[in-house]
Amino acid sequence: MNELGNATFENYIGLNDGYTEMAYQMVAHTLTLGYAVMLAGLFYFILTIKSVAPKYRISSVLSVVVMVSAFLLLFAQANNWTSSFVFDKESGLYFLGEGEDMFNNGYRYLNWLIDVPMLLFQILFVVTLTKSKFTSIRNQFWFSGAGMIITGYIGQFYEVTDFYAFAIWGAISTLFFIHILILMRRVIKEGQEGIPAEASKVLGGIWVLFFISWMLYPGAYLMPHLLGIEGGFFNEAGVVGRQMTYTVADVASKVIYGVMLTQVAQIMSKSEGYVEGAPAKA
Amino acid sequence: MNELGNATFENYIGLNDGYTEMAYQMVAHTLTLGYAVMLAGLFYFILTIKSVAPKYRISSVLSVVVMVSAFLLLFAQANNWTSSFVFDKESGLYFLGEGEDMFNNGYRYLNWLIDVPMLLFQILFVVTLTKSKFTSIRNQFWFSGAGMIITGYIGQFYEVTDFYAFAIWGAISTLFFIHILILMRRVIKEGQEGIPAEASKVLGGIWVLFFISWMLYPGAYLMPHLLGIEGGFFNEAGVVGRQMTYTVADVASKVIYGVMLTQVAQIMSKSEGYVEGAPAKA
Repeated sequence: MNELGNATFENYIGLNDGYTEMAYQMVAHTLTLGYAVMLAGLFYFILTIKSVAPKYRISSVLSVVVMVSAFLLLFAQANNWTSSFVFDKESGLYFLGEGEDMFNNGYRYLNWLIDVPMLLFQILFVVTLTKSKFTSIRNQFWFSGAGMIITGYIGQFYEVTDFYAFAIWGAISTLFFIHILILMRRVIKEGQEGIPAEASKVLGGIWVLFFISWMLYPGAYLMPHLLGIEGGFFNEAGVVGRQMTYTVADVASKVIYGVMLTQVAQIMSKSEGYVEGAPAKA
Repeated sequence: MNELGNATFENYIGLNDGYTEMAYQMVAHTLTLGYAVMLAGLFYFILTIKSVAPKYRISSVLSVVVMVSAFLLLFAQANNWTSSFVFDKESGLYFLGEGEDMFNNGYRYLNWLIDVPMLLFQILFVVTLTKSKFTSIRNQFWFSGAGMIITGYIGQFYEVTDFYAFAIWGAISTLFFIHILILMRRVIKEGQEGIPAEASKVLGGIWVLFFISWMLYPGAYLMPHLLGIEGGFFNEAGVVGRQMTYTVADVASKVIYGVMLTQVAQIMSKSEGYVEGAPAKA
């Protein structure tokens, strides 16, 4: 920090060191892949909505909500990347362009502020809670989901300027995250009781997917620090690795999670006598 | 590579040599044709989804997923081309613009990372396997499909900077490709057993289409090297020919393939007594 209290950005790659062609392009491609998957997922959830009984359809609707918001915010994130940097013919590297915005992951965070509560809420329409109260779980999911994202969002601004603020906000965010994991474990355990074995198996798979894919986010948050933020190859690898990790995590925790919930709902619908296209009995 | 470890781009056309008006425009038009076909295909697959029985509709849904992701990534690829180069009035050639990104085929590759697993998966919902296990074939398709694309994606970064890395990654990618061809041959052979002759004939056509269209990709990967990367007419012809080949291959392997699978599903649906618009029996 200088005497005016402005942050120093000397560790921000692209400002002094440049990105190599491969690193720059890999991030551009990965971010583009990310929003394309979300729009593809949007169509998937719309087109499969009638494959489940009406009472489960709100799960598909929430997947659609998640896809729309993720598509738009990841699209903005991708444009932020490609417009920030310009190719320098002499060095063959990409540098922050004159008059361009810095690249910042904040678009992602504000996307999660919509998506995280929706994703957590969504599963409550597919499973039946045997012991816990629906409204209590829902409110705890929303409280800790929003708390996790907002504190992480504040923390990421300090990444290159103030490591302690970055770490402390990250730690508070992690506490909310642990609370979410405990709740989700309980929801899935209760949901597995008394349902067809096939559906129970898919729900068990959703827990594994949820645990692994959500654990990728704190890993990505720390990645440039873990790989060394002081410049050079590992710094660049940290930036590229983070965008790839976020993209894998986004696809797994939003799209694959939604597809698996649809699958559970399809099995449950079938076991309850639902046939797609057959007239409902009044 | 220079002493700083940065890649040298002296063989990259547009940097020192320029593209002629004809070459530049042909690529721009071909890329635009490519994404336009994908959006048109998107509407085709949505509008024909009810012409097949519910159990086959997931094939159309997967075609829609492929169309959406291909549309967006080919759109980004086309914009990458038109924004990279600027016309030089004096020489009448197109050169890399000041402050613009280099042109890179990576958007295509990351599109294939979605599309290849989906296209391979799709056929498994139309055919009935008589000997092989659905999950085993699916997992092998996904493993080798992703392996083929990721290794090809890494390889293409070395095209102008390191021929050996380019060739070795390409060779590994080809091994995965051969595995896919063997699997697809088996799936189609088994799928042809015991189905109406008309459907079996279309499935046989799908094998021919699949084989020819997928073989175009390794050809396009090598094309600028086959035609001589050392500058001049053949170098330029290699770049233009590659984009045309990729576009023909994309249209054949995604759109025509999907249309033919829909045709098989329509014949099967009809032979099983499905009538579009009639209520299903509960």
